[in-house]
Amino acid sequence: MIQVSVIGSGNVAHHLLKAFGASPKLQVNQVFARNKKAIQTTFPNVEVIEDLSLLKSVDVIIIAVSDDAIETVSGQIPLKNQLVVHTSGSVALDALNHKNRRGVFYPLQTFSKAKAIDFHTVPICIEAETAEDYLIVETLAKSISDYTYSVNSQQRQALHVAAVFVCNFTNHLYQIGAEICNENKLPFDILKPLIQETAQKIVTLSPEAAQTGPAKRKDTKTINKHLAFLTKENQKEIYKLLTKSIIDHGKKL
Amino acid sequence: MIQVSVIGSGNVAHHLLKAFGASPKLQVNQVFARNKKAIQTTFPNVEVIEDLSLLKSVDVIIIAVSDDAIETVSGQIPLKNQLVVHTSGSVALDALNHKNRRGVFYPLQTFSKAKAIDFHTVPICIEAETAEDYLIVETLAKSISDYTYSVNSQQRQALHVAAVFVCNFTNHLYQIGAEICNENKLPFDILKPLIQETAQKIVTLSPEAAQTGPAKRKDTKTINKHLAFLTKENQKEIYKLLTKSIIDHGKKL
Repeated sequence: MIQVSVIGSGNVAHHLLKAFGASPKLQVNQVFARNKKAIQTTFPNVEVIEDLSLLKSVDVIIIAVSDDAIETVSGQIPLKNQLVVHTSGSVALDALNHKNRRGVFYPLQTFSKAKAIDFHTVPICIEAETAEDYLIVETLAKSISDYTYSVNSQQRQALHVAAVFVCNFTNHLYQIGAEICNENKLPFDILKPLIQETAQKIVTLSPEAAQTGPAKRKDTKTINKHLAFLTKENQKEIYKLLTKSIIDHGKKL
Repeated sequence: MIQVSVIGSGNVAHHLLKAFGASPKLQVNQVFARNKKAIQTTFPNVEVIEDLSLLKSVDVIIIAVSDDAIETVSGQIPLKNQLVVHTSGSVALDALNHKNRRGVFYPLQTFSKAKAIDFHTVPICIEAETAEDYLIVETLAKSISDYTYSVNSQQRQALHVAAVFVCNFTNHLYQIGAEICNENKLPFDILKPLIQETAQKIVTLSPEAAQTGPAKRKDTKTINKHLAFLTKENQKEIYKLLTKSIIDHGKKL
């Protein structure tokens, strides 16, 4: 039975605690949270502390706070030679204070409090300084997820950037789609099967093979019709840039 | 039992014929295809013709050819007062020759021959010149799909543009994600759960509520780190433009 403590009470901490609570292979020892009540309402069986100096030694302490706070928080842990990991995609392992054994436990997923997550499908990217610590973090990761990957700090940075493209930017394109529907008195629901299928396609096809549309066909007639239809400068610019990028990619093949 | 004939043998025609073949409520009478063999191998029970002058009168003739060919093909149909519909998102109803009754049967989905589609979930956008013809096209649509919508030519154009954003451009962002993985010796598989979840989220949340990431948080430190990480000019430009758009959207709220 792995003993874990969690520092933080944001989206990632919240979803992690839910997944930990559902696993028989580990036990959550303490949670540090500024807002004690919010955590205790959702997780009544966990000891919530409001003072980092009360942290006890466990197998792994997980720091799930905002990127900027990781370094400071890790320095405030009142322990030595304790295995401490953070959950950030864009902070290097060595941002963690060197008085403790260090690692990274990065769940590559988009978390919103309003939406439940099946953690078994969430890839967890692991980094550690020794093989022994890697094994502890990996055992912890495998107790909640079916997908664990060894990812170094440079690769993790790459993944974080890639995630911005395939998640944050993609969701913004959904928002533009919703706006166009709204302006034309159409329900956004009408686009949802297309959105699902576009995501489903790349499970079996490469994005390159899955590409369709006027840019892929170099159909300048339709492209010009679309540009004439769009009235917002912002939407026009995005349309032009992404169309150019698809056409340029086609040339390289 | 509705009698249908199909002109065309591309992706849309192919998937429509599959869906029609699976429905007990309609019968495919003739298919016009330049490549007779390809159609007859997949659909052995259908009469395939290579000459439009052989077309017989049926309840609905569906023109599923490239946008540019719709007008010409509709003029070559050797019938009068026949209900003829096209399947294009970006061609107006009146591109169809006026010697026949005209309509549109636009399935809003991304079709690749290599990927099967469950047509029951595909929204079909319908337009017709009379209530009687609307009913015929709607009955046909309902025999293969659970989602039919009344969409006029202007709205259909809007949908076609929106589809480029949420499907073609989104898929291109997946391709950039795959490239970043590849450059950093990471499997693209690691991003797939994130891609699925991003698409799943907007089934229950609005894209606005689902938005996460550094641009949403106005986290300029991470944004600059990402821009410094990216080496391809093309990726940098897309990153900058979409980040700016997300930040500008936030300001309007």
